[in-house]
Amino acid sequence: MSGSTYGTIFKITTWGESHGKGIGVVVDGCPAGLALSEEDIQVYLNRRRPGHSKFATPRKESDAVSILSGVFEGKTTGTPISLIVHNEEQRSRDYSEIASYYRPGHADLTFDMKYGFRDYRGGGRSSGRETIGRVAAGAIAAKILKQLGVELFAYTKSIGPVQINPASFSLEECLENPVCMPDKEAAQKAEEYLSQCMARHDSAGGCVECVVKGIPAGIGEPVFDKLDACLAKGILSIGAVKAFEIGDGIEAAQTVGSINNDAYQYDSDGKLQKLTNHAGGILGGISDGSEILLRAYFKPTPSISTPQKTVNQSGENIEVSIKGRHDPIIVPRAVVVVEAMTALTILDLLLMGMSSRMEYLKDIYLK
Amino acid sequence: MSGSTYGTIFKITTWGESHGKGIGVVVDGCPAGLALSEEDIQVYLNRRRPGHSKFATPRKESDAVSILSGVFEGKTTGTPISLIVHNEEQRSRDYSEIASYYRPGHADLTFDMKYGFRDYRGGGRSSGRETIGRVAAGAIAAKILKQLGVELFAYTKSIGPVQINPASFSLEECLENPVCMPDKEAAQKAEEYLSQCMARHDSAGGCVECVVKGIPAGIGEPVFDKLDACLAKGILSIGAVKAFEIGDGIEAAQTVGSINNDAYQYDSDGKLQKLTNHAGGILGGISDGSEILLRAYFKPTPSISTPQKTVNQSGENIEVSIKGRHDPIIVPRAVVVVEAMTALTILDLLLMGMSSRMEYLKDIYLK
Amino acid sequence: MSGSTYGTIFKITTWGESHGKGIGVVVDGCPAGLALSEEDIQVYLNRRRPGHSKFATPRKESDAVSILSGVFEGKTTGTPISLIVHNEEQRSRDYSEIASYYRPGHADLTFDMKYGFRDYRGGGRSSGRETIGRVAAGAIAAKILKQLGVELFAYTKSIGPVQINPASFSLEECLENPVCMPDKEAAQKAEEYLSQCMARHDSAGGCVECVVKGIPAGIGEPVFDKLDACLAKGILSIGAVKAFEIGDGIEAAQTVGSINNDAYQYDSDGKLQKLTNHAGGILGGISDGSEILLRAYFKPTPSISTPQKTVNQSGENIEVSIKGRHDPIIVPRAVVVVEAMTALTILDLLLMGMSSRMEYLKDIYLK
Amino acid sequence: MSGSTYGTIFKITTWGESHGKGIGVVVDGCPAGLALSEEDIQVYLNRRRPGHSKFATPRKESDAVSILSGVFEGKTTGTPISLIVHNEEQRSRDYSEIASYYRPGHADLTFDMKYGFRDYRGGGRSSGRETIGRVAAGAIAAKILKQLGVELFAYTKSIGPVQINPASFSLEECLENPVCMPDKEAAQKAEEYLSQCMARHDSAGGCVECVVKGIPAGIGEPVFDKLDACLAKGILSIGAVKAFEIGDGIEAAQTVGSINNDAYQYDSDGKLQKLTNHAGGILGGISDGSEILLRAYFKPTPSISTPQKTVNQSGENIEVSIKGRHDPIIVPRAVVVVEAMTALTILDLLLMGMSSRMEYLKDIYLK
Repeated sequence: MSGSTYGTIFKITTWGESHGKGIGVVVDGCPAGLALSEEDIQVYLNRRRPGHSKFATPRKESDAVSILSGVFEGKTTGTPISLIVHNEEQRSRDYSEIASYYRPGHADLTFDMKYGFRDYRGGGRSSGRETIGRVAAGAIAAKILKQLGVELFAYTKSIGPVQINPASFSLEECLENPVCMPDKEAAQKAEEYLSQCMARHDSAGGCVECVVKGIPAGIGEPVFDKLDACLAKGILSIGAVKAFEIGDGIEAAQTVGSINNDAYQYDSDGKLQKLTNHAGGILGGISDGSEILLRAYFKPTPSISTPQKTVNQSGENIEVSIKGRHDPIIVPRAVVVVEAMTALTILDLLLMGMSSRMEYLKDIYLK
Repeated sequence: MSGSTYGTIFKITTWGESHGKGIGVVVDGCPAGLALSEEDIQVYLNRRRPGHSKFATPRKESDAVSILSGVFEGKTTGTPISLIVHNEEQRSRDYSEIASYYRPGHADLTFDMKYGFRDYRGGGRSSGRETIGRVAAGAIAAKILKQLGVELFAYTKSIGPVQINPASFSLEECLENPVCMPDKEAAQKAEEYLSQCMARHDSAGGCVECVVKGIPAGIGEPVFDKLDACLAKGILSIGAVKAFEIGDGIEAAQTVGSINNDAYQYDSDGKLQKLTNHAGGILGGISDGSEILLRAYFKPTPSISTPQKTVNQSGENIEVSIKGRHDPIIVPRAVVVVEAMTALTILDLLLMGMSSRMEYLKDIYLK
Repeated sequence: MSGSTYGTIFKITTWGESHGKGIGVVVDGCPAGLALSEEDIQVYLNRRRPGHSKFATPRKESDAVSILSGVFEGKTTGTPISLIVHNEEQRSRDYSEIASYYRPGHADLTFDMKYGFRDYRGGGRSSGRETIGRVAAGAIAAKILKQLGVELFAYTKSIGPVQINPASFSLEECLENPVCMPDKEAAQKAEEYLSQCMARHDSAGGCVECVVKGIPAGIGEPVFDKLDACLAKGILSIGAVKAFEIGDGIEAAQTVGSINNDAYQYDSDGKLQKLTNHAGGILGGISDGSEILLRAYFKPTPSISTPQKTVNQSGENIEVSIKGRHDPIIVPRAVVVVEAMTALTILDLLLMGMSSRMEYLKDIYLK
Repeated sequence: MSGSTYGTIFKITTWGESHGKGIGVVVDGCPAGLALSEEDIQVYLNRRRPGHSKFATPRKESDAVSILSGVFEGKTTGTPISLIVHNEEQRSRDYSEIASYYRPGHADLTFDMKYGFRDYRGGGRSSGRETIGRVAAGAIAAKILKQLGVELFAYTKSIGPVQINPASFSLEECLENPVCMPDKEAAQKAEEYLSQCMARHDSAGGCVECVVKGIPAGIGEPVFDKLDACLAKGILSIGAVKAFEIGDGIEAAQTVGSINNDAYQYDSDGKLQKLTNHAGGILGGISDGSEILLRAYFKPTPSISTPQKTVNQSGENIEVSIKGRHDPIIVPRAVVVVEAMTALTILDLLLMGMSSRMEYLKDIYLK
C-alpha cells in the first residue's frame, strides 16, 4: 500500500498529484442520515485555498469541490462519499527543470529512492495540494462531531520567533489577519518577520495549536491506539510537521509530579472537575472530558529562491535557486489541515468507542 | 477493539495486566528462518526490569520470558510467536485502597469512564508492565533489522533540568550509570536531582533520544503512513510520553528555510551525502538513508507520596498519598521501550516497502 | 466503514451508485514502474459493459474509463491510481416508482433497515454497476500477475440446467457466443433456455468457473487468510453469488480420502508433480504451484416482470411487476468480475508473501 | 503477517502448534461488562475435544482453558482476553518419520514452499488443534450474541453419501450420537459408513449446516464486507473446507427468478414476513432479520493408513502409510468450529454496524 488510507471505521482514502487532473478523497464509513452539501465542505477548503494573501502562493485555484456519490436527497446514505477538486492552473513548465535535480528539503530524492522515479511536476504526490482531500474529509468529520457536541478550532501560535500572547487571545482575530493568529499585535509582528524573510528570499516555519471542546470522556483505546498517539500520527502525517505536543508537552518533562499531576475535585453541583489541565485532556490515552490541547510544529517551506547546494541526476554537484510559485510560510494555510486531521482522528476513535461496553450494544440492538 | 495490536505486516498483539497472571505478546508476521532464542529476548527485557537501582521500583520480578510457539529447532517458522512473562510478585493488597478513588495523573478515571469499571490492581492494563510485550517483540524486530544492517540505540537525553552535553557523549557510559545517560557528569547531576525529588516525595520526567543507523533509503509511505508519523504514534503510545520530535523538531519551526534545508553533495566517491541532517533522516515521510534521530518526552511519574487532592467514588473530595512501590522516574527504564517501538515501526514499514517496485516483485517471484 | 475497501497491500476502494454521477475506484499500493494505459483497463470494462446482446440490459453506457492520478509518463508511480467512469444514461424516472416498495430478491429492504433510508435509483450502491470499480482495478492486478507469469481466465460453466461438456471445451469459443460459454453446443442450448425464460418474463442463474495458471507455490497465509478463504470472500462479495467451491468442492465431501488425496510424484526431470488436482491447487490455504480452480454460483436476476407479491412502505401488501432495463441473466457479464476478484485476491496475497522468509528481505535490502 | 488475526473490532489472534507447548488466542475488542468464566469457554472446547468416540483420534487431551487476562471480578474489562490451553500428550515420536516426506492432502509441501522449512510435528500450525483458539474465542462471541437475542447452532448434515432427513430433524439428537447428526436414523447409517471406511483404512468427509436465529436486520456491509462474503471467508478458513453455500446455494443457480425470489408480506400484526427463505437470510450482503442458513463442506481426513504414492525430500518417489492417531472423519468435531467462526463473523459485523446511522451515535454519546 502507499499509505493513502486513514482511519478504521471512518476511513478516508486520498488520491491525486499537484499537477495531475485533480485531487480527491473517498470517505467510507460515514454514518447515514447526516445532512451534507458541497457548501459544508467548501468553507473548509476555502480556508486552505491559495491566492489569499501575499504570504501564500499566487497559484490560482478555485478548489471547488464536487460530491460524486454517497449523498442522496441532501443526506449521507452510509455508502462511500467521493469528493473531487479539479486542478485548474497546472503550470507544469515551471517544474520541468527540477526533473533533473533534487531540491533540498523536499521529497524528490526519497521518492526516487523508493519508487525508482517520480512525478516531478510540482512535487507530485508530496505536494501540499495533497491536503485538499484531508480537509474535505475533515469537514465532514467536524460536522458529525459538532452534532455530538464536540467543537474544535486551530490557530497559528507562533511564526518564526513571534509567539502569540495568551493574554491577548481572540479567536475572531484569526479571520482578520493573513497569518491566522488570534492576537492582533503578534500578527503584525509576524507579518513584518515574514516580509523580511521574503525580502531575503527565505522562508519561515511556525506552530499551530488546536483545541477540542466538548469531547466525551472515554474516547481513545489503551495501549497502541491511545487518543494522543493517534493524534500524533495524524498530525505528523501532514508534510513539514517536525514535532507534536499534547498538553504541556516538552515542558512536562522538565517539571515534577506534584506540579504536573492534575488534581480532581467535585464542584458544588457534584460535577467532577480537574483543577488544572497539564495533561491536555488525555490520561492513559483516553479522553477525560476536559479540553484537548495539541500543538504541531512546522518547518520553514523548503522552496526558497536563495541559492542552495544540491546534486543532479547526472552525478554533478550544482547550485540552484527554486523558481515557481511558493508559499514563504505554510503555517497559516495549514491551520485548517491540523483541524481536519484532529477531527478525523477523534471521530474514528469515537466510533470505535461505541462497542466498548455491553450496555452500548444493548442500547442499539435491544431497543 | 481495545487497541492492543500494532503493525500491519509485522503485527504484534499484547495482553496482560500488572497484577494478573502474566504479560504476553503474540508476534504475527515474523519472516521464517530467523535464529531466535529466549536469550535474544531476555537481554532486552532485563534492560527494563525493575529492582535494579534506587531510582526504580523495588518490586521483584525476574521477568523471565518463555517462547510458546512459532520457533522450531531454533528458527522462526513464519507462524505466530507467542511470548509470556509470568507475574511473580503481585502484592495486590498494596492497591486495594485505590479501588475507591482516582489517582491524579493516572488512567483510573478514564478507564472507569470508558468501560464502566476497572481492574484497579496496580493500574491494571495501564500499568508500565504492559510494555513488557512491546520490548519482547521489539527484541525480535531489532534482531531482524540488525541482519539488514540497521542498528538502533536509545539513551536518556535529559532528566528534569539536567541535559547531557553532546561534547561528552559516550554510549558505553549508559550502562555504567543508573539513569542510562551517555555522559558521566550529567548522569551524576541527574542522580543528585532525583535524590532531591525522592527526598521531597516527588517525581521527575525527562527525555529519551533514539538514533537509527543504516536504514535503507525509501522506507515509509507517502501521505498518512509517513515514517515519522508512524514513529510518532509508536512513541506516543508509550504511557507518559507527552511530546515527540524528529530531527530538529521544535527548533525547526523557529529557524528559516535556508538554514533548515539539508544540502546534498556527491563525495569524492560519487556517493550522495547530506551536508547537514536537520531533517532527522526523513523527507516527505520517507527515509533518505541518513541517520534517523527522534526524541520522546516523558512526564514525571504520577505516583507520588506527597499529599494530593482528588475525589472518591462516593462523591467526596479527599486528599491522598500514593503508597506502593513506584519509580521516582520512569525514563531510564523507558529507554529500551523507545528503542523497541522504533524497531517495530521501522521493521513494519520496511516489510511494507518490499512491494513498492515492480522489479522487487520480479526479484522474488521470477528468480 | 461501509466495506468498500478490499485488500491489505494492494488495496482498492470503490465508490458510486447506479444513477449517481459516476462509478470509480482508488487503487492504493500498486507497485511503481508498471506500464499502464487506459486501454489496458478498458478492454476489461468492455467485457462487462451492457448493451452487447439480447441477454443483457439495453442500458447504453460507454463505460469509458479515465485515469485521474498515479500514472506518469505511462508508468505507475507507486501512488494511488484513481479511476473514474461517468454514468451516462441514468433514466431515474424508470425507478421512481420503486421508491415506495421493496423489490423481492433485491437489497431495497435491507438497505432501509441498515441505514434508515436508501438511494432507490436503480439499486443505488447495490446495483451491478458497482462492479465497474472491481473490474477496473482487477485489470491492473491481472496485468501485474501476467508479468509474474500468472494467467487467469473465467467462463460460464452452466446456465440454469445447461452445463458445458468438458470434452468440447474451447476457450476461444467464449468470445463467439453471448453467454460466454467455452462450448458451442452448450451455448446454443443455453441461449434457447434463456429465450424461454425471457418469454415467461422470468430470469435465470448459473455458474462461472475460474482457472489460474502459473501461480507460484507458497501464496496464501495459514489460518485465517488462507488463499481459498480469501478467494471465497472475494467471490461471495459479488452480488448474487450464493455458493463457492474450490477444486472438487462439494463433491470432495462425498468421496473418501484415498480418492480425494492428490498423490505426488517426481517426473523424469525431477520436477514435483501432482498426479491429480482434486484440491484445486491449494493445500492448507497455500498454493502448491498447480492450477487453481474455483467456481461461483449466481442466483437468477431478481428483477423480473412476472407479477410478484411484496409490501410497500405504507404498510400494504401489494403485487408488482418490475419494469426498467434488466438482464435476464447476469452470469455472462459476471465472468470478468469473477476474474477481477480472483486477480485482486491473489495479487494481494502474493505481495503479502514477499516477507515470508528472511532470505527475501535480504534479497531486496542487502543487494 | 501470517494471517492469524481475524476480525476488525472483535479481533482475535490465535497461536500455537499441534506439538508445541500449547495453543492460545488473544481476544481484543471484547466489550466491557460481560460476565465470563472459564466454564463458559470450556463447554465449547469440550465439544471439539478428541478422545470422545471411536470416530475421533484417541489422543488424550483435557483441553482445559485458562483465562490469563482481561477478566476482573468475573467480568470482562474491555482489555485483551488471553486464553491458553496447554498441550499434554505431544507424542512427537509418532511424527519423526514424516519430516522427510510430504503427506498427500496435507500442508507439508506448501509450508515448505512458503517458508523454506516446517515444524513437521503433527502438522505444526496446520494441525486441527489450531481450531482450539477459534472455538475458545467463539464461545465468548456466542455469549455476547445470546445477550443480544442471537442464537446459533450447527450440526452434521451429511457424512459421505448419508444425508439427514429434514422430516426427522431433532436438534437434541445431535448430543446422543457420535456423529452429531440431528436425525437418529441417518446417524446410524453414517456410523455404519464410517466403520466401513475405517475397516478399509480410509476416511470420509461431509457437510456441516449452521443456523442463526434472531439476528437483527441490517448486519453486514455492502460491497466487499457483505455478511455472506465474510461468513464464506470465516468458514473456508477452517482447514479441509472445500465449499460454502448460503441459503439455497448451488441450487439457486439452477432455478428461475420467479421461484428463487422471496416474496414479502405483512402478517396480521403488521409485521414484515418473507413467505420463503431461499436467500438464507441475507440480501445485498445485509441480514434481513430472518434465519441465516449456511453450509460448510469438508473433505475426507487426508491422514489414512492406506498406502499412498508420494515423494521425499531426497528426490525419491516413495509409498507411505500414515501412522499416528487420526480422526477417520473430522466433521463431527468441526461442528462447533463452524459455529464459532459464524459467531465471530456475525459479532464483528454487528459491532461494525453500530456506527451505521447518525441516530445511533446520538443514542450513545448524547444520552
